[in-house]
Amino acid sequence: MEKGKVLFGDNGFDTLNDYLNSNESLSKIIVLADSNTIEYCLPPFLQKVGKLINYELVEIDPGEEHKNIETVISLWNTLTELGADRKSLLINLGGGVLTDMGGFVASTFKRGMKFINIPTTLLSMVDASTGGKTGIDFGNLKNQIGVFNLPEMVLVSSQFLSTLEARQMRSGLAEMIKHGLIADKKHWNSLNNLDNLDITSLDSLIKQSVAVKIEVVTQDPTEQGLRKILNFGHTIGHAVETFYMNTDKMLFHGEAIAIGMIAEAYLSTLKTGFEMEDADKIKEVILEYFPKTAIEKKDFPAILDLMKHDKKNVSGVISFSLLDDIGSCSYDCYALPEETIEALEYYME
Amino acid sequence: MEKGKVLFGDNGFDTLNDYLNSNESLSKIIVLADSNTIEYCLPPFLQKVGKLINYELVEIDPGEEHKNIETVISLWNTLTELGADRKSLLINLGGGVLTDMGGFVASTFKRGMKFINIPTTLLSMVDASTGGKTGIDFGNLKNQIGVFNLPEMVLVSSQFLSTLEARQMRSGLAEMIKHGLIADKKHWNSLNNLDNLDITSLDSLIKQSVAVKIEVVTQDPTEQGLRKILNFGHTIGHAVETFYMNTDKMLFHGEAIAIGMIAEAYLSTLKTGFEMEDADKIKEVILEYFPKTAIEKKDFPAILDLMKHDKKNVSGVISFSLLDDIGSCSYDCYALPEETIEALEYYME
Repeated sequence: MEKGKVLFGDNGFDTLNDYLNSNESLSKIIVLADSNTIEYCLPPFLQKVGKLINYELVEIDPGEEHKNIETVISLWNTLTELGADRKSLLINLGGGVLTDMGGFVASTFKRGMKFINIPTTLLSMVDASTGGKTGIDFGNLKNQIGVFNLPEMVLVSSQFLSTLEARQMRSGLAEMIKHGLIADKKHWNSLNNLDNLDITSLDSLIKQSVAVKIEVVTQDPTEQGLRKILNFGHTIGHAVETFYMNTDKMLFHGEAIAIGMIAEAYLSTLKTGFEMEDADKIKEVILEYFPKTAIEKKDFPAILDLMKHDKKNVSGVISFSLLDDIGSCSYDCYALPEETIEALEYYME
Repeated sequence: MEKGKVLFGDNGFDTLNDYLNSNESLSKIIVLADSNTIEYCLPPFLQKVGKLINYELVEIDPGEEHKNIETVISLWNTLTELGADRKSLLINLGGGVLTDMGGFVASTFKRGMKFINIPTTLLSMVDASTGGKTGIDFGNLKNQIGVFNLPEMVLVSSQFLSTLEARQMRSGLAEMIKHGLIADKKHWNSLNNLDNLDITSLDSLIKQSVAVKIEVVTQDPTEQGLRKILNFGHTIGHAVETFYMNTDKMLFHGEAIAIGMIAEAYLSTLKTGFEMEDADKIKEVILEYFPKTAIEKKDFPAILDLMKHDKKNVSGVISFSLLDDIGSCSYDCYALPEETIEALEYYME
């Protein structure tokens, strides 16, 4: 099977059972989970994957604040103690923080052991777990350190979502909306007519989002060009997310990206000729799902400053991916600091 | 130009000048060096590479004891402060410690920036700088953490060797002897008739060693199989090197590999039918260059214990690459602990 393949529902679990059955050469299997996924996701996972019998369970603390080099060092130590080697398999059972970090640990341990991602949040299903980006936050910057490396496979099963709180569900929805806006108008239309986010109707929407992401990353796995369109909403979104990190206004990733998409839709009207009417519609739809965060004007310069470290930038010039139209996105767009401030003001209006 | 290409002498410097000239998209150039290479290698390097004008110099402390995650963290911080991005270039000017670590830092910073290796020791010219292995020591284990990733190019120029001390020259010679033993009998014959190691006659021997290494790594870049033959002498050698690290008997890498090759040549006689006469000849030639290290019998078990973490191992069984014949090597060979002890005894006889 080609690396990085995304499998859905029971078909995924069956494939994993087959994989474990036919890979007697796997020297050790380690399941990485956090206290939440151990409680809610590990039992149903083990029930589905009967071939997973001998494994070591490694627990980490949940939360973005632990997605750092200290946790990575502790995991490298744990893998060393467990006697893991290049023929061992790490199964990452968790949200985006866990699959990003587990992927990085596996990719760097002894220059690379195998790993499989089992995303347990909507956000990680439609975004973090696929596409080969691994990494950790560093020096207050999101995903500053990492590598591109594909997991053996990704298993997406919406059954893990039944215990997910509403705020986390919404966080995933933001990335799905993004997929529609940048590449799939029909998907956008389905999402903005959503009455409420129930799990059964979600399956096909998840598949559609994953399809958009795979289509893009297959064409440009290491983000030399096209893949940057997946960063629509993320230049401003990441900066806002970082700004409020570790404060009492801490945002979920999707909540920050929701803000970023509204602001960058406005920026698109200044830069690409994107219709103001469409920007207003995006703002209206997104604000229905995501209540407005009060960003104070005095904080705009500090947020702007954080954008200077965005990984898309070259030579310190802040780079954006902006909409040309609903369902179409350009990358390597540049905006002036005052235009970016204007975009934040548009969000706050 | 394909990534990872090794260029020799002035041709290499000319190519780098052309590269710098034609790559206006490079956002920043950072030269990583240590106090030794800043003194001895940077001035001649800058003289040869006239197109390198605007660059930032980053200095690290020399020595294997700094090849660790703390130095990596400090370099990630420095790159962040310098505003380096994915279009920046890191030029690693130094020995194997520096090129291994610099390659790892570049490969993981923002999920990968470009890097070029300029090896300044014989050892790094014939081994560390080519083939795409990057990494650092971790938890007392050599190169435990790292990734496979090719530099833009590798420039090999023996002019840097003029200031290298004899002990470091010998350290490189060990890997060259290894190249002959595992894959090129003629190369082995040239090396064991060497009267003294002078720089001019060395050029063609370096080229021959690099040719052996490239031939092997091209066939198996991520060490799934064949590449393991480059580890002849390294299972025992790495363990001995680690054992004496930070003691007053600290060995250079090549010195440890010299011990490992003698011991593993003996092990080959037990396992592959390698001729005892050839093992004795290897011992005789190597001991001419590398005075015997007194390894105490009481330390054998601790050294054996260190082999359990060798990256070639699977499921805790210690794996060796052993000679079938002079110029031919097998991998995935297993030996009993008592046979390995016997091999160390053979070295000490």
